[in-house]
Amino acid sequence: MSEFIKSKAAIAWGPNQPLSIEEVDVMMPKKGEVLVKITATGVCHTDAFTLSGEDPEGIFPAILGHEGAGVVEAIGEGVTSVAVGDHVIPLYTAECGECKMCLSGKTNLCSAVRETQGKGLMPDGTTRFYKDGQPIYHYMGTSTFSEYTVLPEISLAKVSKDAPLEEICLLGCGVTTGMGAVTKTANVQKGDTVAIFGLGGIGLSAIIGARMAGAGRIIGIDINTSKFSLATKLGATDLINPKDYDKPIQQVIVELTDGGVDYSFECIGNVDVMRAALECCHKGWGESVIIGVAGAGQEISTRPFQLVTGRVWRGTAFGGVKGRSELPEIVERYMQGEFALDDFITHTMKLEDINDAFDLMHEGKSIRSVVHY
Amino acid sequence: MSEFIKSKAAIAWGPNQPLSIEEVDVMMPKKGEVLVKITATGVCHTDAFTLSGEDPEGIFPAILGHEGAGVVEAIGEGVTSVAVGDHVIPLYTAECGECKMCLSGKTNLCSAVRETQGKGLMPDGTTRFYKDGQPIYHYMGTSTFSEYTVLPEISLAKVSKDAPLEEICLLGCGVTTGMGAVTKTANVQKGDTVAIFGLGGIGLSAIIGARMAGAGRIIGIDINTSKFSLATKLGATDLINPKDYDKPIQQVIVELTDGGVDYSFECIGNVDVMRAALECCHKGWGESVIIGVAGAGQEISTRPFQLVTGRVWRGTAFGGVKGRSELPEIVERYMQGEFALDDFITHTMKLEDINDAFDLMHEGKSIRSVVHY
Repeated sequence: MSEFIKSKAAIAWGPNQPLSIEEVDVMMPKKGEVLVKITATGVCHTDAFTLSGEDPEGIFPAILGHEGAGVVEAIGEGVTSVAVGDHVIPLYTAECGECKMCLSGKTNLCSAVRETQGKGLMPDGTTRFYKDGQPIYHYMGTSTFSEYTVLPEISLAKVSKDAPLEEICLLGCGVTTGMGAVTKTANVQKGDTVAIFGLGGIGLSAIIGARMAGAGRIIGIDINTSKFSLATKLGATDLINPKDYDKPIQQVIVELTDGGVDYSFECIGNVDVMRAALECCHKGWGESVIIGVAGAGQEISTRPFQLVTGRVWRGTAFGGVKGRSELPEIVERYMQGEFALDDFITHTMKLEDINDAFDLMHEGKSIRSVVHY
Repeated sequence: MSEFIKSKAAIAWGPNQPLSIEEVDVMMPKKGEVLVKITATGVCHTDAFTLSGEDPEGIFPAILGHEGAGVVEAIGEGVTSVAVGDHVIPLYTAECGECKMCLSGKTNLCSAVRETQGKGLMPDGTTRFYKDGQPIYHYMGTSTFSEYTVLPEISLAKVSKDAPLEEICLLGCGVTTGMGAVTKTANVQKGDTVAIFGLGGIGLSAIIGARMAGAGRIIGIDINTSKFSLATKLGATDLINPKDYDKPIQQVIVELTDGGVDYSFECIGNVDVMRAALECCHKGWGESVIIGVAGAGQEISTRPFQLVTGRVWRGTAFGGVKGRSELPEIVERYMQGEFALDDFITHTMKLEDINDAFDLMHEGKSIRSVVHY
């Protein structure tokens, strides 16, 4: 085996520039690392957020992409949990099973590779991507916009070989995030009333989660009414356009639900909507879960009375799902037909056309574009 | 029985005036109501807050007081849960057992008498207090600054006759609030690390709750270091004066606790401290509980990232304790010696001297003054 492998990749050379499709050198996996051949990857708003330059933690040049699926191509020394040929979903939230966070049993926010991952590097502090000798940074520890990518072993969920990679790649971020926020973080119960703010990929996934949990009423809220038909198909029972009302949307929802919802979910990243989502919750027990990522420096606010009277404000990352121990089961549930993924895939394209995916997203014309290698 | 009974009472004729000790007429209890002879009442910061005029919901003239204990003097038609001679603690949070809130099982915020209580009236929309024919408003549904007061049956916890009323009156508000916030709302577990901001009556009660729950580390925070010795006696393991540090107190606590506390409690009503209390919680699972009541119009803020990374923000009223079904058990635990109440009682006085209690509070010289009738 050579020291590196040639790979087609989309490089983000700097903020607010189109991605550049180039051939890069991908170094062979070191100890505890795995080389994965990505076969499909979704293009997510978070990729666009970083590419826009607004992400204060964005680093360039980098290979973006964090919603992929693929096949293990080679393993480094000491890797035991996956083997060549295994199907895997890259995890931007690792699961080492040994750090304080993992051992707590209370969170999926493993801290094992967090620091280097945030710097665009592998755990040993170096990169595996080079272009003409120049190092290119990793992104979210996954860099799925490269045909070949290297990840720590603890950042891979091994999944069924029967599952279509070009669909389950969406479980690497958006769908798991929305679904998990409802079923795991909030733990919605049969008959509960839920409100879901923002009907993009995350919000639609939250609807699926709510339907799977048996929610009695699923209220979708968006100012883009073109989302409503799919939301209805997936399980929304009520759809609201805030622009149709003269009063605050939280008030509309409180009146509609005899006092407020049991659970609400913010799937946009807008701090004003986060407040509305909290305040539409029922006094005494309503809980609001923040899923969306707000811009740098932005803050949420409310009167403390909202909390003192029994509302709860929380958040979630990757739907609270532990990637290695819980994501394979979600793939199984997908295989059993509990939910569909093709509804989300509005466009597919080759890597060469990946910039179209960003354009479609910015124009609000796509839910998910999936790139096939 | 006459139509009314003469009673000594402290009347708040208007905001920011001393209470006036006068004889008032207390009407006999109507259907579902109970006349209680108050034998002792604590003077709480909430009374002072309303008296100051800063409470937007304050109504005058009124008889304040909400932390009392006494003996049933007479019952109205249909009252079955208490009898003449029973010892009771008045509840500003009723428990009807029949409203949506009570039936949910998820909250102690009974809604049965809420609306009229907020208007200073009994459930039938009238008052039971008169001075020279002029109606005087009730306060928090309790008005314990009157030797005789009338409450709805559902606003009374019947407690053991063996318990000293001049001590368990404190369970009518402060001590139950702090203790319940820890043991019920947060449900602190053995070995947990907790931070308690503000070491007044509520904060000290929270320390007791944390000790009863078996917390491993109990960090008390106050800028008034005169509170530290009692806090230590009650169970605090660490005491911090924020003025001793150049950096934000949340950062101090995060460093002191290897990443943050499991639970924090804000016992002041200061929105900046509420933020610090949230942000000193451990990533992934730390929960902050707001107990203090902030001034009108004030708001809490933080970056949503604090929640997305697993912290939870909640609040509590009366410690989440259901008055009629749970307070009697707390009295029993007190009788079993699980916690003491005399530590809190720094001053006792007759009703005639009740204005001294407010002065002592404003000067920071008391934890609780208890008025004996």
